[in-house]
Amino acid sequence: MAISVADGRISIASLEEFCLRTLRGLGVSATDAQTTTDVLVTTDAWGVFTHGTKLLRGYARRLRAGGLRADASPLIVEDGPAWALVDGQSALGQVTSVYAVDLAVKKARESGVGFVTVRNSCHFGAAGYYAWRISQAGMIGLAMANDVPSVAAPGSKGPVLGSNPISFSCPAGDHDPILLDMSIATVAGGKVFARCKRGESIPLGWLVDDQGQATQDGALYPDRASLAPVGGHKGYGIGLLIEILAGVLSGAAVTRQVGSWLFGDMSAPTNHGAAFLAINAGAIMEPTRFYSRVAELIAEIHAQPTAAGSPALMLPGEMEWRNRRRAEVEGIELPEDVLAYLEETAAELGQPFLA
Amino acid sequence: MAISVADGRISIASLEEFCLRTLRGLGVSATDAQTTTDVLVTTDAWGVFTHGTKLLRGYARRLRAGGLRADASPLIVEDGPAWALVDGQSALGQVTSVYAVDLAVKKARESGVGFVTVRNSCHFGAAGYYAWRISQAGMIGLAMANDVPSVAAPGSKGPVLGSNPISFSCPAGDHDPILLDMSIATVAGGKVFARCKRGESIPLGWLVDDQGQATQDGALYPDRASLAPVGGHKGYGIGLLIEILAGVLSGAAVTRQVGSWLFGDMSAPTNHGAAFLAINAGAIMEPTRFYSRVAELIAEIHAQPTAAGSPALMLPGEMEWRNRRRAEVEGIELPEDVLAYLEETAAELGQPFLA
Repeated sequence: MAISVADGRISIASLEEFCLRTLRGLGVSATDAQTTTDVLVTTDAWGVFTHGTKLLRGYARRLRAGGLRADASPLIVEDGPAWALVDGQSALGQVTSVYAVDLAVKKARESGVGFVTVRNSCHFGAAGYYAWRISQAGMIGLAMANDVPSVAAPGSKGPVLGSNPISFSCPAGDHDPILLDMSIATVAGGKVFARCKRGESIPLGWLVDDQGQATQDGALYPDRASLAPVGGHKGYGIGLLIEILAGVLSGAAVTRQVGSWLFGDMSAPTNHGAAFLAINAGAIMEPTRFYSRVAELIAEIHAQPTAAGSPALMLPGEMEWRNRRRAEVEGIELPEDVLAYLEETAAELGQPFLA
Repeated sequence: MAISVADGRISIASLEEFCLRTLRGLGVSATDAQTTTDVLVTTDAWGVFTHGTKLLRGYARRLRAGGLRADASPLIVEDGPAWALVDGQSALGQVTSVYAVDLAVKKARESGVGFVTVRNSCHFGAAGYYAWRISQAGMIGLAMANDVPSVAAPGSKGPVLGSNPISFSCPAGDHDPILLDMSIATVAGGKVFARCKRGESIPLGWLVDDQGQATQDGALYPDRASLAPVGGHKGYGIGLLIEILAGVLSGAAVTRQVGSWLFGDMSAPTNHGAAFLAINAGAIMEPTRFYSRVAELIAEIHAQPTAAGSPALMLPGEMEWRNRRRAEVEGIELPEDVLAYLEETAAELGQPFLA
């Protein structure tokens, strides 16, 4: 049950085992614990440490307090040939989202396209995991979710929409899948915190204060400042699309109604919304031809001349796949804050941490 | 056939008649001329003059030169319960796109979701028209297209992707539909030209020169500068998604293979790609409930406190609907460049222009 560390690196297997046993200890079924572990550890292996096993501590607290239900299973409220509405029943966001993704893939296998909108979910971790899972089935995948407002709209004094993550992934045959995972904010709140911690000022354009003015004072965030939307009205507009597909259309909580999974009442469901779209590329174009066309696009982008000092252009996700391959061989070098969170998680459950 | 102008304003009916007769005179069928006219004039009525009847001159030249075929009709290459692949056969981009949109709506009526990807299309005008047309059927609509590269990727020396417009629209019951229409560039190339014309420098962040460095010299665009992607890797990543759904998956031209509809060989097809998605909101949630939830979101956004001097927050599209309502009563005040283009179009066809 303890994590074994060698040279400051933790093997994927060891990290998985820790997550798995932690979740099992909280009453989560073997299958659901495996699902959640795969989402969290894959995310760490990609090097996206803000959305990996660091989240386990909060999920564990919520499972103990009742805001997440270890024994709940998501269910289909209603569906049609190419769509479904899923109620997560306050199961772990990862469990509900993987269920919804696999359902979208099933619909897309039958009808060419599958759209699943989800209510009564919770924080689901990295949107990229779900889009990637769709691409693993040979389909183009989109994943999105709403969240507690933290992002301003152009002209607003306060936050209007959540960070509303959106991800897309495209399978690429012999190449790694293309994988974009972004929020609608100019930068993640975590980057603001990191600069504050280092005593640095915040670049103009990242934050908006509670008078609706650009600010460089990172200490104001999140209580008296919100994140600027990427591209102004463009980020705000995409955020609205996500809010509608994930929140409004599913019957989930919308904007301020969404519970804060980390700072809110741990015993109450957050009722996050999410939405997943699978487009069965192989039904529309013969797969060999599709992959060869994707490979041509990738080769063209890699061949683009770059600015002095810039490395070759990358496809979204390339960095993450390199990180993951390295992690598979050498293990994952978890940042200190993640290690501290995992240690706390172990302590709160009265378990050993490092072996 | 001539346009009648009163107080510098042209009535919608008069502008429509001019477009219609111009297209009819070029051999376009009554139905296709009506379709194209509705796209162009609706766009002008929204105040989006860069994508309205200004385009008619180029389309007319292309129809005469053979790069667009007046007698062509788009056809379904293959389809399934929730998708279709359409070949535009080099018909007007508006004709092909409206055909594809109506097909997406039909599929969504049957299956809940309809995705249509399109090849052998051409420049299609404002993406917003097509998303809006889907919302007129009570569905959530997305519309996108690829184009000749004009937008850099982070680190690139030259353009990598087209402006790759994407639009979404959501029906809102008694409210005007929400309508976002954006490109993946930080700003439109037209804004660069306008600043240049006024002798102003270009704000940092709009342009990247041919060494991959930010530049304020607007004279470099478009030959030796490209547009910066909105939000850096985010705009670039969304642009890739659009290129894949509209270009790669349809079998259309991709990036540099796309013909320039305005500057390229007017006798050769451009083979633009496009993609349309219709999500039948009314199949997923009882329409009255859906519209009431959308109305709540709109009311919440309108009620947000705004910065000193900022008007109330707007939903994407609100400005356009105000413009259109005004245009219906008072006519459209076309900018000088649009009038000049229309006059040229008339002259090239030996027709009267202003009555």
